[in-house]
Amino acid sequence: MLRGLARFAELRREGVPISAFLRGLLLRRHFQRAGLILSIPGRPRPIIKNQGGEIIVESCSFEAGVRLEVYRGATLFIGKGAYFNRNVHIVVAESVVIGRGVKIGWDVVIMDTDLHGHSGGLARSKPVVIEDDVWIGCRALILKGVRVGKGAIIAAGAIVTKDVPPLAVVAGPSAGVIFSVTAPSSP
Amino acid sequence: MLRGLARFAELRREGVPISAFLRGLLLRRHFQRAGLILSIPGRPRPIIKNQGGEIIVESCSFEAGVRLEVYRGATLFIGKGAYFNRNVHIVVAESVVIGRGVKIGWDVVIMDTDLHGHSGGLARSKPVVIEDDVWIGCRALILKGVRVGKGAIIAAGAIVTKDVPPLAVVAGPSAGVIFSVTAPSSP
Amino acid sequence: MLRGLARFAELRREGVPISAFLRGLLLRRHFQRAGLILSIPGRPRPIIKNQGGEIIVESCSFEAGVRLEVYRGATLFIGKGAYFNRNVHIVVAESVVIGRGVKIGWDVVIMDTDLHGHSGGLARSKPVVIEDDVWIGCRALILKGVRVGKGAIIAAGAIVTKDVPPLAVVAGPSAGVIFSVTAPSSP
Repeated sequence: MLRGLARFAELRREGVPISAFLRGLLLRRHFQRAGLILSIPGRPRPIIKNQGGEIIVESCSFEAGVRLEVYRGATLFIGKGAYFNRNVHIVVAESVVIGRGVKIGWDVVIMDTDLHGHSGGLARSKPVVIEDDVWIGCRALILKGVRVGKGAIIAAGAIVTKDVPPLAVVAGPSAGVIFSVTAPSSP
Repeated sequence: MLRGLARFAELRREGVPISAFLRGLLLRRHFQRAGLILSIPGRPRPIIKNQGGEIIVESCSFEAGVRLEVYRGATLFIGKGAYFNRNVHIVVAESVVIGRGVKIGWDVVIMDTDLHGHSGGLARSKPVVIEDDVWIGCRALILKGVRVGKGAIIAAGAIVTKDVPPLAVVAGPSAGVIFSVTAPSSP
Repeated sequence: MLRGLARFAELRREGVPISAFLRGLLLRRHFQRAGLILSIPGRPRPIIKNQGGEIIVESCSFEAGVRLEVYRGATLFIGKGAYFNRNVHIVVAESVVIGRGVKIGWDVVIMDTDLHGHSGGLARSKPVVIEDDVWIGCRALILKGVRVGKGAIIAAGAIVTKDVPPLAVVAGPSAGVIFSVTAPSSP
């Protein structure tokens, strides 16, 4: 409790408005477990669609427009001090882990599934892990099955479809982005 | 009429809210011919800018933020059961055909023209055809002159500037994206 | 004054609504020096975050959702007749110059810094120059240190990390987008 108050005082000194704490409180009902959540004022407000999954947050900050979608039975973990800039969009059909101190730029999409719209049954999913202290530049896409190693940097606009080693810097569409599938049946 | 009612009952059972039907009705005035249009609630509402072209819809669903722009004399055809996720943006200067059962992910742009902003006169256009049952991943760009074959899958973030054969899966910026033009004159 | 009135009459004849002039006037307070600014109606309204920098505008048009962020001590120059389509986002930590007659497509990001979110101290910046009469296609990213030569065309979705010669047409992620850094320390 005392530690919470000290943290509150510190964030207030850094200029975080009180409304960010209040908006954060309003988001807690969507989470199964949550530490301090800051929701910076702005439009549109963050949208959390928890459709029967589990969202666990150590602590984090959301800018406007953040969108989290967690499907039935899926799990989203957000580590201490993670930062979500405007319009970050996370889709979880199975499992996504966002490590501690991860900074995510605006318009980034992270998804562990191929799910399209409301098409049923055919989606494939594979867990995504973003390790601690990763930086993800604006507009990057992190796709299913990817593990991004601790401290790595993903450049703006990168499309990440393969694992990224710790401390690596990656940019552009990753190598081998053309993949083959068995014949797609009609959705 | 009876078939319409049966379809209405079926969609209601699937959880489509009544407001989606009503919002869809409100959009019909922008179309020259239209079957059932569902406009799923959410902000911003779909924007249809029909500036003297023709829009024909067999039936489709729009999520929030869909934007259709059809210039004078141009034609947009949308086949039965097409699905437009959030913020899909279609610009038609000449002709765009969206086949039946096509699923389009969020933030996708499809345009048949190079038109920039309100610069006049210099735009070049070339029809775009998306054949039946194509899936287009989020954030993909489909640019002028492209035909995407039946059942193909366009990966998230792909930039498509060349034809895609049926059932193919494509990702990344397509080969040959560097093109040459004759000297651009000042806009 | 007379020239201003003539220009006003001309733009009105072209169909620019009076509200665009009024909204433009409201934005002037964020700029150190500004000529005629048109702010086309639409949501969300342009957001100008001038955090102690200098913004100089000869004249320009903004569509809805344009976002300019200028940090302390940084400079943004916008030349005569520049056009910013919807959701253009410019981040200036040091210096960005937008030349005369530049047309910028929707969702374009131009930034002269690597700055992530509210992480402090580690950002690197390098001036960006977009020379006169450049066209930038929708969704392109123009990153730090880049000079785009007069009359060049940047294709939709391009990621520009290197200089572009005058009149060139570039598309795709530019060559050499994989870059190496010295070990990133924790943010």
